[in-house]
Amino acid sequence: MTRRLRIRKGNLVEDLWVENGSRIIDALAIMDGATVETPCGGKGLCGKCRIVVVAGTVSAPDKLERRRLSAMELASGERLACEVRIEGDVEVELPEQGAPSIVSFAPQSRAIPDPPVRIVVVSPQVPGLENQSDDETRLLEAIALEYVRTGYSALPPRRVALEALPALARLCRGDSPILVGAVIADGELIGIVPVRPGARTLGIGVDVGTTTMVCRLIDLGTGVHLGSLSELNAQRSFGADVISRIEAARSPEGFESLRNRIRIQIAAMTKTLVEASGGAGDDLICFAVAGNSTMLHLLSGVSPDAMASSPFTPAFLKRRIESAAALGFVDRPGCAAILLPGISAYVGSDIIAGITAIGLHKANERSIFLDLGTNGEIAFGGLGGILCCATAAGPAFEGAGIEKGIGGIAGAIDSVWIEDGALRFGTIGNAPSTGICGSGIVDAAAVLLDCGIVDSSGRMLEESEAHVLPPQLSVLISTGSRGPIVYLDRGRGIYLSQADIRAIQLAKAAIAAGMATLLALSGVATGDVDRLYLAGGFGSLLDARSAARIGLIPPGLENRTVVVGNVSCAGATEACLSRASLEACDRACELCSYVELSSRADFIAAYIEAMMFPEQA
Amino acid sequence: MTRRLRIRKGNLVEDLWVENGSRIIDALAIMDGATVETPCGGKGLCGKCRIVVVAGTVSAPDKLERRRLSAMELASGERLACEVRIEGDVEVELPEQGAPSIVSFAPQSRAIPDPPVRIVVVSPQVPGLENQSDDETRLLEAIALEYVRTGYSALPPRRVALEALPALARLCRGDSPILVGAVIADGELIGIVPVRPGARTLGIGVDVGTTTMVCRLIDLGTGVHLGSLSELNAQRSFGADVISRIEAARSPEGFESLRNRIRIQIAAMTKTLVEASGGAGDDLICFAVAGNSTMLHLLSGVSPDAMASSPFTPAFLKRRIESAAALGFVDRPGCAAILLPGISAYVGSDIIAGITAIGLHKANERSIFLDLGTNGEIAFGGLGGILCCATAAGPAFEGAGIEKGIGGIAGAIDSVWIEDGALRFGTIGNAPSTGICGSGIVDAAAVLLDCGIVDSSGRMLEESEAHVLPPQLSVLISTGSRGPIVYLDRGRGIYLSQADIRAIQLAKAAIAAGMATLLALSGVATGDVDRLYLAGGFGSLLDARSAARIGLIPPGLENRTVVVGNVSCAGATEACLSRASLEACDRACELCSYVELSSRADFIAAYIEAMMFPEQA
Repeated sequence: MTRRLRIRKGNLVEDLWVENGSRIIDALAIMDGATVETPCGGKGLCGKCRIVVVAGTVSAPDKLERRRLSAMELASGERLACEVRIEGDVEVELPEQGAPSIVSFAPQSRAIPDPPVRIVVVSPQVPGLENQSDDETRLLEAIALEYVRTGYSALPPRRVALEALPALARLCRGDSPILVGAVIADGELIGIVPVRPGARTLGIGVDVGTTTMVCRLIDLGTGVHLGSLSELNAQRSFGADVISRIEAARSPEGFESLRNRIRIQIAAMTKTLVEASGGAGDDLICFAVAGNSTMLHLLSGVSPDAMASSPFTPAFLKRRIESAAALGFVDRPGCAAILLPGISAYVGSDIIAGITAIGLHKANERSIFLDLGTNGEIAFGGLGGILCCATAAGPAFEGAGIEKGIGGIAGAIDSVWIEDGALRFGTIGNAPSTGICGSGIVDAAAVLLDCGIVDSSGRMLEESEAHVLPPQLSVLISTGSRGPIVYLDRGRGIYLSQADIRAIQLAKAAIAAGMATLLALSGVATGDVDRLYLAGGFGSLLDARSAARIGLIPPGLENRTVVVGNVSCAGATEACLSRASLEACDRACELCSYVELSSRADFIAAYIEAMMFPEQA
Repeated sequence: MTRRLRIRKGNLVEDLWVENGSRIIDALAIMDGATVETPCGGKGLCGKCRIVVVAGTVSAPDKLERRRLSAMELASGERLACEVRIEGDVEVELPEQGAPSIVSFAPQSRAIPDPPVRIVVVSPQVPGLENQSDDETRLLEAIALEYVRTGYSALPPRRVALEALPALARLCRGDSPILVGAVIADGELIGIVPVRPGARTLGIGVDVGTTTMVCRLIDLGTGVHLGSLSELNAQRSFGADVISRIEAARSPEGFESLRNRIRIQIAAMTKTLVEASGGAGDDLICFAVAGNSTMLHLLSGVSPDAMASSPFTPAFLKRRIESAAALGFVDRPGCAAILLPGISAYVGSDIIAGITAIGLHKANERSIFLDLGTNGEIAFGGLGGILCCATAAGPAFEGAGIEKGIGGIAGAIDSVWIEDGALRFGTIGNAPSTGICGSGIVDAAAVLLDCGIVDSSGRMLEESEAHVLPPQLSVLISTGSRGPIVYLDRGRGIYLSQADIRAIQLAKAAIAAGMATLLALSGVATGDVDRLYLAGGFGSLLDARSAARIGLIPPGLENRTVVVGNVSCAGATEACLSRASLEACDRACELCSYVELSSRADFIAAYIEAMMFPEQA
């Protein structure tokens, strides 16, 4: 069941549409920018992620909240975003000061509205016997005059697209002046819509992740964000990773099914958001899509097959503006679809959207952008140039390939720490533990290293060696079917095994080696890196100290790490709102040089080296 | 049953696909230019339309042929084109000297091949790990290089159209260089096709008339015409005239049905011609469509409704280049469709195609172009400017509204004359008369005027007044249910009635008044008109002297009348072949000023005046 989570920050309001039972901190993760501080990684320990529940039904305060918040604070609605769960439509207030992030909470967009797809409202000359020119000519004349009148800096359209002609013939009728809205995209008139008094024009930014789809609705006239919605990608029954989707798309039926699912899901999410905002279908004139190249190929009806094997060739990468109808959104005749540009088969437009959203392409700095989703994409640089690469990190951080691994669902152990010499853990929703998810895996590995259960080579203590540990820890060591294991929750049988540690080593080594290779190619030392921007669903709740402890991110960078949330959707939304933001995506592409890691000896060397865990700092 | 009529003239060859039993002269009528001389209007009297049957089965020589041709001539294959009928695949030779027409027989196009839609064959760089750019980028690079290499004067395409991306992903594969054909239309890459050794690139000119559809196949590399095909418009069950089609298109089902018929018929005719030429579907990269504005609206999926009533507003008139797939030709992914530009709802792109085919837009003369089809469209002028108008001539000249009127089918009286004081007639195919068609109606009216059966007011002698006539004629006068009638074929009951004469007066007055109005607006006297170009199916076999006699064309112009045949299809075919010809259509449009007759007092005055028949010269 979907609930509305209304978020206020000062005068700004944004609605998120989230599943009942979600933690508020997880709901906030689909937004760009760290909306609350989470130094403890959402473990209920630091008490920094305070919010005020203004209205609606939420879960009762749990033990951790009662420890961090006074009775008076609780009575006034203060809660910890990492603990409180949504049990109805809810309205919360975020602290004004915000979090130490360069990407601010943005229910009001930062860009000045100047949408690349816009409605020009005109009143074409009424046809008469003395003026028998065709509707197309009269409409184009009226638009050209309007451009002159308003001083709009673009060439007026020279033709009406074929698919807009039927609406033209229908709307430009009658013997008295009539107002029509011409939807103009990239200099082409792609749609003609009736003009309703007081109607807004709406755009939607879409981030099509392999695992998650996020849509954000924006008012193209004001730049106000009207709502966001996140769902699991409906394609995931075809496999968790991109390669399995490409394989499924090899059969014509598989291809059509994958294509339809992505389109139908975008259409449904779009409809939900527009209706929830009180808008009508005609109000939506544009959606901008960021996503990995495979998702964009499928959406466009183009086979992604050649991206599955070397040399990983996409059919297209450049930015496209199409009529949504041409992409199969047949009930959206006056709507354009912007497909944002990508860099390569595995550095897609989601990365470009993220880079432009955080402003890396124009920042006078040398920073790392790391998107930890189903794949690990890395960009390094700034306005002087950006190197980027993709690492086949594998699905370990998504919980797959880990014996007790699960996704970020209720009951997943998402944080692990040592308290009073004992190993403690938190679960999502404070539910009884059912497995361990990404941020919990990283935390656990860091803790096991710190307390000597795992050494820097990745070797786990055998049960026979457990006596060297304090009793509180030694009781956790046991022997599984394939070697030593460490219980995180002995009672419920949740553990990490030696094999899990090896899988974590492989995954973190790929990402670390990717970063090391880009840094080495640039001749920049880790100490000279200005920031590390951590993006992506999994990245949002990662504890930077744990990540540095296991060598997933270069040790020393944990203090320069900025959690930026879903900047891909933010970038796509900005591209709907402003020509400058859309053009920034093109410029970012030009700035980017893609580094193919798979064939590089230096990467392989760095990969082997990064397989070790760092020694205790 | 369709037969191939192969026509040779010197070294030039063209195939026409015609119904078994057709007269060769009728088959030739779908071509542009008078291919044989027909001073007697195809009555078998003058013997000028001689051709040589080189091979194949034709009808046995009839009486008229035996009268005009010697036994030796007949033995060597000489025949009269107006008499001989096709009874199998036939090959004929036309006289080299041709007819006195400025539009020559054109199995070889006059334009230099420089098609607006062309295939550029390139070999994009093979992708590799060191060159991971996408297929689109590599293909566009290869095309830009090819433009430079060949010095082609156009901007190279900057994107691959969405609908061409699937073929791109399919064809630009493999690790060795591959040749692909990029179909480029109007600077946009709309299709990607495999390259077959020795394949031609083909184009088709289409004339979509309300009554007749004509297609001509052309080799875009050489300009050689490969075949033509004419069929009745499959929409005609919805009504004979344009208005009845527009009315039928008001219901969604009617609209879809009319749209589908036109598309399916073009697709089928195209397939027939391409296959007959030995080509494959991929070879066809372009068809250019001329037709009245209603037909082009229906083909484009746009309602023609607003053209049915004042102020007769079309949705579009300008030239368009679309992918054929976007128009619904889903099995032609690499093919473009050019929709030629028109002037108004009732002066469509067929008129523009005709004007450019005969070169009126660049002729240093002031001439009349008259297209006598289902409507009568008139253009007057030359390179200094062209006035044009459409007259609601009504369907009298198509045989409709005439009591014994029929279309131009076997048995139709198509010529009437006085010989030795008696009224004589000829029928199509020399079959027993079953009715009277357009050219026969005009001939008959002229003859009735000449012999005093009808006076200049249009009044027909009553049976009681018939005694003033010579006996051979007086016996033809009778009284029908609604007044006097004149038998053309008493034995088979074929006659013209007083009411028919009134219908002819209305029809010819509309056309004559249209011409008079344009001449008066220009201040040009009839005597200063350089030529009258007579186009259209009905116009092709019209006897200019008869037309002048009844005042359908201004008396005095009959000797300056040039029968130009189906120049609309010729113009469309040229537009496929050369950018200059296509651009000439745009220029001709700019040159044209449309004159709306329905609201003009001077037209109404001229119409009333033209109602009378001219006095005997």
